[in-house]
Amino acid sequence: MPTQFDPPSGTRDFLADEVEAREQAFDIIRSVFVRYGFEPLQTPAFERLDVLLGKYGDEGDKLVFKILRRGEHEASGEADLALRYDMTVPLARVAAAHGSQLPWPYKRYAMGPVWRADRPGKGRFREFVQCDLDILGSSSLLADAETLSAQHDALAGLGLADFTIQLNSRHVLAGLLEAFKIPAGLGTGVLTSLDKLDKLTPDEVVAELIGRGLPEHEAAELVATMTAPDAVDRVRAALKPGEEGTAGLDEVDGLLSLVLPQIPQGRVVFTPSMVRGLSYYTGPIWEVRAPGVAGAIGSGGRYDHLIEHLGGPDTPATGASLGVERILALRPPGVVSGRGRLDAAVTVMGEELARESFSIAAAARAAGLRASVYLGSSGKLGRQLKWASDQGARWCLIYGRSEQEAGVVTVRDMISGEQTRVPLDDVSSYLAAAA
Amino acid sequence: MPTQFDPPSGTRDFLADEVEAREQAFDIIRSVFVRYGFEPLQTPAFERLDVLLGKYGDEGDKLVFKILRRGEHEASGEADLALRYDMTVPLARVAAAHGSQLPWPYKRYAMGPVWRADRPGKGRFREFVQCDLDILGSSSLLADAETLSAQHDALAGLGLADFTIQLNSRHVLAGLLEAFKIPAGLGTGVLTSLDKLDKLTPDEVVAELIGRGLPEHEAAELVATMTAPDAVDRVRAALKPGEEGTAGLDEVDGLLSLVLPQIPQGRVVFTPSMVRGLSYYTGPIWEVRAPGVAGAIGSGGRYDHLIEHLGGPDTPATGASLGVERILALRPPGVVSGRGRLDAAVTVMGEELARESFSIAAAARAAGLRASVYLGSSGKLGRQLKWASDQGARWCLIYGRSEQEAGVVTVRDMISGEQTRVPLDDVSSYLAAAA
Repeated sequence: MPTQFDPPSGTRDFLADEVEAREQAFDIIRSVFVRYGFEPLQTPAFERLDVLLGKYGDEGDKLVFKILRRGEHEASGEADLALRYDMTVPLARVAAAHGSQLPWPYKRYAMGPVWRADRPGKGRFREFVQCDLDILGSSSLLADAETLSAQHDALAGLGLADFTIQLNSRHVLAGLLEAFKIPAGLGTGVLTSLDKLDKLTPDEVVAELIGRGLPEHEAAELVATMTAPDAVDRVRAALKPGEEGTAGLDEVDGLLSLVLPQIPQGRVVFTPSMVRGLSYYTGPIWEVRAPGVAGAIGSGGRYDHLIEHLGGPDTPATGASLGVERILALRPPGVVSGRGRLDAAVTVMGEELARESFSIAAAARAAGLRASVYLGSSGKLGRQLKWASDQGARWCLIYGRSEQEAGVVTVRDMISGEQTRVPLDDVSSYLAAAA
Repeated sequence: MPTQFDPPSGTRDFLADEVEAREQAFDIIRSVFVRYGFEPLQTPAFERLDVLLGKYGDEGDKLVFKILRRGEHEASGEADLALRYDMTVPLARVAAAHGSQLPWPYKRYAMGPVWRADRPGKGRFREFVQCDLDILGSSSLLADAETLSAQHDALAGLGLADFTIQLNSRHVLAGLLEAFKIPAGLGTGVLTSLDKLDKLTPDEVVAELIGRGLPEHEAAELVATMTAPDAVDRVRAALKPGEEGTAGLDEVDGLLSLVLPQIPQGRVVFTPSMVRGLSYYTGPIWEVRAPGVAGAIGSGGRYDHLIEHLGGPDTPATGASLGVERILALRPPGVVSGRGRLDAAVTVMGEELARESFSIAAAARAAGLRASVYLGSSGKLGRQLKWASDQGARWCLIYGRSEQEAGVVTVRDMISGEQTRVPLDDVSSYLAAAA
């Protein structure tokens, strides 16, 4: 039950452990993108309303968080700004605004929150991070290969091994419609039904196709082809004679020949029944699937006219997106958590010892350690040792009257419980050597 | 003149060089905070409207970006959410919501954008990054010392050397009013005028004090004390007899004795005329000044009742804030820019060579380098070398027909122009050794 202190519906407070795990994952992903020569782009959290509206369809427009006009205009109840809904519309705007300043082709990644007024639910948020990489200005299949390959390496860098990249091409799909002589008006519907072959039984898909107006035997033949054990071979054979089909196979095979040498066997699989809902794709398309995860953990493809449609320049484009929130929910093994907050926890056994304790903490920091003095009010060693342990400290540096008299610090190893008396002046070098 | 492609008024698009410089600075700051045992906190970009409104005064409330209700409620023109205006109100909410889960005292930092509908101007933005560190739950002067010291180290870590931390205490200010027998009703006004001693002449401040109702000789004596070459000594003498004054001096001297051993001489200076506008401070207060910068580049102080006032638990608190946008404008020398985008730029001299070129780039990445193939459409070496140079590449890896025949790559050093032919299989180890 939400309380008045909870964050707004669909949003989250991230406390330290979560922030650290998330940032670690983002750093891994970023480092892979940078290694491919992608550069970062950061745009504002909000855009002018007219930049966003009309780009996501009616359903999308309803999910945009709109910002009320300010000052004397507030009473109008009108909005003039809106929170970023994705990273693609801002990219199109930036390409239009800064085109001449950008290196061209423009390889950029963007990683940051977007906001959608969706109904919140398990694993579905109103504020969530999107992670996109795109290349504008190149028609080369090498651009698709770099994008797909960088996306793969980011997942591998996160320590994920059990995932598959399903590869297809819009030309393959067009070729399929051609080969099976699907009437033009039925094309989109047929593809939508075929895309369900991973959720529905073949019979259910056949029924759906018939419902869409496909003759029974054609529907059955199409589904039989797509679900046969040798479906890929059958599709290849069916596509060969046609122009679209040939172009599609060339695209898929060309892309596979570029990326396969770098990617473990079986990770990228030609999947002719994979459609992807979005109609703006124009070339290769792919989806990343992981067992046990409903929906894709990543996707990508070529979208040669979208940037212009979104208000940017007319430029070929290809891109990929990582579903980072879903990926984080998989607890990727490359993300290591629970390092503790401190390396060295320094006691403060009395006000008259505070100054030296503060200096001892500074000496530990100078040795490159994370260190803090005790800030509570208890003068009892037991309480302060408990604090040190709660902080996950490797050492507790104890400095009481007897240490003061002897000019030493007692360095307590919090794992073994061993204690060593170290001269005050040597604390920094002692800890640097021990760390 | 703004065009339709510019970001909204008061916001910025950050292209690669700026993102990298900013992130570098943020990383430096973060690493210092972490070394002090501060932990990160991330809260949503927006809060419920009732959480924000009424916390910043009438003027502040007007600057809050409000978010329109959605769906059927949109037509009401009412707002239910608002963009984060600072990091302190969310901190108070989190302390109330997650108090029992938090380590206590709670040392946290927060770094991220906040939004204010201020009139945009030179160096003033509607979306800008705030960087706060705070300690809730400790009354100890050690907590103030850790905060001030961490703030100092962050500035030093950024390579800034020319700055001063002006230290004072609310008790010193209260003691001053007591010592000079300022009537209670005039106290706040007198302090506000004294705070202007760095902008106005002493005579102007005297005139302002008289205008506020202070007798002429008292106003003159007060200003003479504060502006004398030995002002600090005179103030100390004036404060000694009083209770507030003594408490204030103890606080200032106690804090100085903790931090001075760790901080270069002259960096932290007791400045009795420094007031800081905000009335919620209850103990030590400080401001960081850099020559040539109007306004502070950082500030801090103890604010023992604010968290409760903001809706959180009743807890002592101290904190500091870095004016990161102003600091970034100083181009801190610790931030190194212009590394270029690529280490290795790989030519693609023809479609039939693309696959091997792509593999060569992968080999360079395997050696830890940033590498990309050429994605443009020109087959001319000159054009591709220019691209390599534009990317700031250290090497251009040339792979043409003659290289293919010989099974080598020509590694061109982009600085010296020297070229070395390296066997294909050795590219990775050759580059790893050269890097």
